[in-house]
Amino acid sequence: MGDRTGDRTIPESSQTATRFLLGDGGIPTATAETHDWLTRNGAEQRLEVARVPFSAMDRWSFQPEDGRLAHESGRFFSIEGLHVRTNFGWRRDWIQPIIVQPEIGFLGLIVKEFDGVLHVLAQAKAEPGNINAVQLSPTLQATRSNYTGVHRGSKVRFIEYFNGTRPSRILVDVLQSEQGAWFLRKRNRNMVVEVFDDLPEHPNFRWLTVAQLRAMLHHDNVVNMDLRTVLACVPTAVERDRADDVLARLPEGSFQARLLHSFIGAGTPANNMNSLLSWISDVRARREFVQRGRPLPDIERSGWIRRDDGIEHEEKKYFDVFGVTVATSDREVNSWMQPLLSPANNGLLALLVKDIGGTLHALVQLRTEAGGMDVAELAPTVHCQPDNYADAPEEFRPAYVDYVLNVPRSQVRYDAWHSEEGGRFYRNENRYMLIEVPADFDASAAPDHRWMTFDQITYLLGHSHYVNIQLRSIIACASAVYTRTAG
Amino acid sequence: MGDRTGDRTIPESSQTATRFLLGDGGIPTATAETHDWLTRNGAEQRLEVARVPFSAMDRWSFQPEDGRLAHESGRFFSIEGLHVRTNFGWRRDWIQPIIVQPEIGFLGLIVKEFDGVLHVLAQAKAEPGNINAVQLSPTLQATRSNYTGVHRGSKVRFIEYFNGTRPSRILVDVLQSEQGAWFLRKRNRNMVVEVFDDLPEHPNFRWLTVAQLRAMLHHDNVVNMDLRTVLACVPTAVERDRADDVLARLPEGSFQARLLHSFIGAGTPANNMNSLLSWISDVRARREFVQRGRPLPDIERSGWIRRDDGIEHEEKKYFDVFGVTVATSDREVNSWMQPLLSPANNGLLALLVKDIGGTLHALVQLRTEAGGMDVAELAPTVHCQPDNYADAPEEFRPAYVDYVLNVPRSQVRYDAWHSEEGGRFYRNENRYMLIEVPADFDASAAPDHRWMTFDQITYLLGHSHYVNIQLRSIIACASAVYTRTAG
Repeated sequence: MGDRTGDRTIPESSQTATRFLLGDGGIPTATAETHDWLTRNGAEQRLEVARVPFSAMDRWSFQPEDGRLAHESGRFFSIEGLHVRTNFGWRRDWIQPIIVQPEIGFLGLIVKEFDGVLHVLAQAKAEPGNINAVQLSPTLQATRSNYTGVHRGSKVRFIEYFNGTRPSRILVDVLQSEQGAWFLRKRNRNMVVEVFDDLPEHPNFRWLTVAQLRAMLHHDNVVNMDLRTVLACVPTAVERDRADDVLARLPEGSFQARLLHSFIGAGTPANNMNSLLSWISDVRARREFVQRGRPLPDIERSGWIRRDDGIEHEEKKYFDVFGVTVATSDREVNSWMQPLLSPANNGLLALLVKDIGGTLHALVQLRTEAGGMDVAELAPTVHCQPDNYADAPEEFRPAYVDYVLNVPRSQVRYDAWHSEEGGRFYRNENRYMLIEVPADFDASAAPDHRWMTFDQITYLLGHSHYVNIQLRSIIACASAVYTRTAG
Repeated sequence: MGDRTGDRTIPESSQTATRFLLGDGGIPTATAETHDWLTRNGAEQRLEVARVPFSAMDRWSFQPEDGRLAHESGRFFSIEGLHVRTNFGWRRDWIQPIIVQPEIGFLGLIVKEFDGVLHVLAQAKAEPGNINAVQLSPTLQATRSNYTGVHRGSKVRFIEYFNGTRPSRILVDVLQSEQGAWFLRKRNRNMVVEVFDDLPEHPNFRWLTVAQLRAMLHHDNVVNMDLRTVLACVPTAVERDRADDVLARLPEGSFQARLLHSFIGAGTPANNMNSLLSWISDVRARREFVQRGRPLPDIERSGWIRRDDGIEHEEKKYFDVFGVTVATSDREVNSWMQPLLSPANNGLLALLVKDIGGTLHALVQLRTEAGGMDVAELAPTVHCQPDNYADAPEEFRPAYVDYVLNVPRSQVRYDAWHSEEGGRFYRNENRYMLIEVPADFDASAAPDHRWMTFDQITYLLGHSHYVNIQLRSIIACASAVYTRTAG
């Protein structure tokens, strides 16, 4: 145990994973203190962001070869043109700008036991696109450019526990996709490792219990995207008797009790795993989906406008791309310039859940996105920027969006705003909702949706290519719903 | 059961899958009769193939936009340029031609019980690139262009059992990759369905027992690639008592008995599944792998020569691409022209196996190929065209290739030549070998190789993106090793 060079195992039902799910040891009063720490850190991690014209961007330029906006090192990422052709949906043939970042980075969370209680080492991290100064982030959040030193900055803290240099026990290690609407086939390596060393203290890092961390998920824009996805990937194999302890503390039949049930795989799922996998193969094979890189100037054929101060769509939809200059005192490098992508409007990510045979099921869809890697991934019931569909013909309105926007508050089990990754996206806020629907709610009219238990979704999170980042975020949020009550 | 629109399930340990693994009901003497049937079919399915210059190819032309060789319909496939950049291996930056075929086709096998014995409906199918006229193929082998009628040819036979029009029970349904060295992100949908209807007879189709089919795998160039991959994907969840029956008939401690053991998951594997998945994530994250589409003429920068009679590499390595005209009397359309890819030399696909704790383990590697979809997939121990490495520096010679080429015959458990898909590849033969190594054989010097049981490999075959097509072929061949003895 702890020897990463030997048997790098996750026990099938490890105590660590159990305590992750159950989140024991939470102290609700510590929440205010965590907020204070974040506020202090925000003041200390000064980050000044200002827009600059593309032509004024140091080291970035449009490449003569194909017009892509790239860094002189050839590293980090670039803004390129992408042609997409499909045989379904409202738009079936278009060219758009997209972020190309073929490097696979680390999103790594360190966990450690203190006095019998599991803690995670959260980082207060500033990102130029954040709506607030800092957010709670994983212990390690690094692109390959970061950790191989292309930044010419300081060493990446704690990487030795993720790359085998120092002993650790790996609980999660899986490549997961990021936003397919904005990234071309981007993935990051989601890792959770348990450490046994005493770690040095640092003002930007803080040990939180799992329950404390989940409590923060009830606040807007506090837990960043990278930490949400890592949290979602923690396996939920649990010892039944420990789960029963928690269930006994939750009101019987309550939403929290049924949700926990669904996470631990109790009850009979509406669809078995083989039929769900067959459904995924079927949809991926039936949907035509052709991606082809194009010279960036070709985006103008699809209504995109390129100016020195930014790229935007003529209908003011989708997103803008522009350059910024960033200055900070606490970063791998002290100042830099980079492009950021700014979505034109807010997203709505809503998951409908329903009691089927005593187990909560989530209504997931298979969603295809321009930059996706494998045709379609599982997504929340509603996953869209509603304003992009304001003028859509009725048959191409996303399913359930009107239902969600008009649902009685009594059905809303979770409702918070979270940001996407502030290193690439500028002040992008999305609304995440968990909505319970009545037993007679009929989803059979939506051919691209299926009912799954949270346990089934978590099983698929052990592999790449199944669960998109927005659904992973909601999975993390859902786990906070019962943790707060239980904690 | 049989209602495909309802619960499309595979029982966790279905009797059908069991009989697939154990292949009972085989009649060795039927093998000669099957050969006769193939020979008769080869004579009847006349297929005349002749090379033609690109400029003489009807409906195919080099597109002004980026020079790719494409069909006027925009369908089927195209020959395009691909730029690859890596941070490992002998060649780290090159531009090559590659087949781009974004459509996901069907490779579908129908199975049915007759008098208590499981049979598969094999097809004798001619392909222009076949080294012989016809080979045993799946019941259904169709691109989307085939089954949506772009060919303007006849209807695709038996598709109604794969698309839900007629009742069937789905045993296998998974998208699997094809040759990453020659295809850009190509996949096909591997399906096995059990049917309950009486099917019409047709001279090109024949019911074979699983044991008969596997016996054919001991002959060169008889079972085509598409049928081998489908066979490999059949789940091996078995009822232990039925497997024990077969084990009792196999000589105790024999290679066949140990191999069957490894397929049914008996014994303790050398590496557990979580550590194997972590290894895959680690290699995929560490390997830099950047693919970018390029105009076809750019391949000349990497030593490719384009002439009207074909594309070839100046070192006579890798492969050629040329046009052919094909005429036949028994096909969706009566004659057509198309490009074919002709590998410059034969491949060697060898899997080393070793007894570890009473269970056979296979030594697999993570291999990156130019057109691969997710950085690397599991491949046989040796997977290369050895002639391509004739002038390679010693450190970049593929691991174990010299060992395999000089191994004593007494260690060779399987050795046959099989073709790759004759619809795209011209007379491409590769040698498939299964080699047992002694207990003191040390693989620790090969950092990109790991020991896995056949049961572990079969588990991963339930998902896309893990096992490459050459390893799938060897898995199918391995299952034939014990079936012949048991049958």
